[in-house]
Amino acid sequence: MTTYGLLLFDTAQELDFAGPWEVFTTSRDLRDGGDDVVLVAERSGPIRCSQGMRVLPDHTLDDHPPLDVVLVPGGSGAREVEPYNTRITDWLADTAARATWTVGVCTGAFLLHAAGPARSRRVATHWQYEQTLEERGDITVVRDARYVVDGNLLTSQGVSAGIDSALWLIGHLHGREHARAVRRALQYEPAPPYLADEPLTSPLAFP
Amino acid sequence: MTTYGLLLFDTAQELDFAGPWEVFTTSRDLRDGGDDVVLVAERSGPIRCSQGMRVLPDHTLDDHPPLDVVLVPGGSGAREVEPYNTRITDWLADTAARATWTVGVCTGAFLLHAAGPARSRRVATHWQYEQTLEERGDITVVRDARYVVDGNLLTSQGVSAGIDSALWLIGHLHGREHARAVRRALQYEPAPPYLADEPLTSPLAFP
Repeated sequence: MTTYGLLLFDTAQELDFAGPWEVFTTSRDLRDGGDDVVLVAERSGPIRCSQGMRVLPDHTLDDHPPLDVVLVPGGSGAREVEPYNTRITDWLADTAARATWTVGVCTGAFLLHAAGPARSRRVATHWQYEQTLEERGDITVVRDARYVVDGNLLTSQGVSAGIDSALWLIGHLHGREHARAVRRALQYEPAPPYLADEPLTSPLAFP
Repeated sequence: MTTYGLLLFDTAQELDFAGPWEVFTTSRDLRDGGDDVVLVAERSGPIRCSQGMRVLPDHTLDDHPPLDVVLVPGGSGAREVEPYNTRITDWLADTAARATWTVGVCTGAFLLHAAGPARSRRVATHWQYEQTLEERGDITVVRDARYVVDGNLLTSQGVSAGIDSALWLIGHLHGREHARAVRRALQYEPAPPYLADEPLTSPLAFP
């Protein structure tokens, strides 16, 4: 049984946590039902996320179940606000020390650096913030990997990359075939458009 | 200026709407600020989504701004409940008739079929529900495309596919270079793990 806790705070980036949430909860559903996935925040009211979505946390910092996996999304608060909020950094240091895995998505690595778990580690972060994170010192930013595993710290590049790293983690925890079953359930066979520069409309009609 | 409305209902699948939400709101942020992206539901209280996340809608069916794009996510309610809820189907038929684009993600196509906009159209849906949808009659399910454009109806395969179709739509509306800029902001360079069957740990250490 695996319990996943995703930290929320105002300005948390929606897809940073909604992607892994979908992966972890689908993993839970496809297993024996003993897993749990919860959203944790400092207070119990609605969180206003980076792009404006309002989400209700399931637990506060003081009333959540023990976490096997703790995940920190990115967003401006992860870089500029929560690193200086000792309630969050103390909680994160303590929770990460008890957890089996600590996960950062996007600029969640900034908060994990401030709280301690990412100190002296190799990490990934959003491409626009690689240099800024490195300038905070005592951290190595890997620039050419979608996600980075260093000990029990798993960090990924920006926003959408949390889907890939979360799938890696459930495969590591529960097996590759399970991870593939989750990927099929999410029909995660990405096909990003506009990778080529062909004309948007063809001058020739074709059947 | 483009206004996007994403319909929420209990059991809406989180990533079905959170993926397009991230694409549309990032598009809004990278343009002149005149765009709007809103979550619309029958009632104003929290929605309990398919995987348990609780999200607050921004508007009810009666108080939202005029929508240029209306998006319907999937989830069991889209297949089994809302097709028989005339407040939703009447609203959807009316709103889609006024909108420039109607978008379905995953099994959102079931609700669009019940409400009318997907009747006699070619659509995509989640792979597990292709036959079930076709059996509802007067609809053609395309089985080998990530997303399908038929007139002003855009539908996609399961869960994660809404990211791809939403990126296609903003490129269609606001240009391919804009869509690429949004893709870069989301660092959407997917790298799903476990696509091969190599050993998880190598018997040989390598540097």
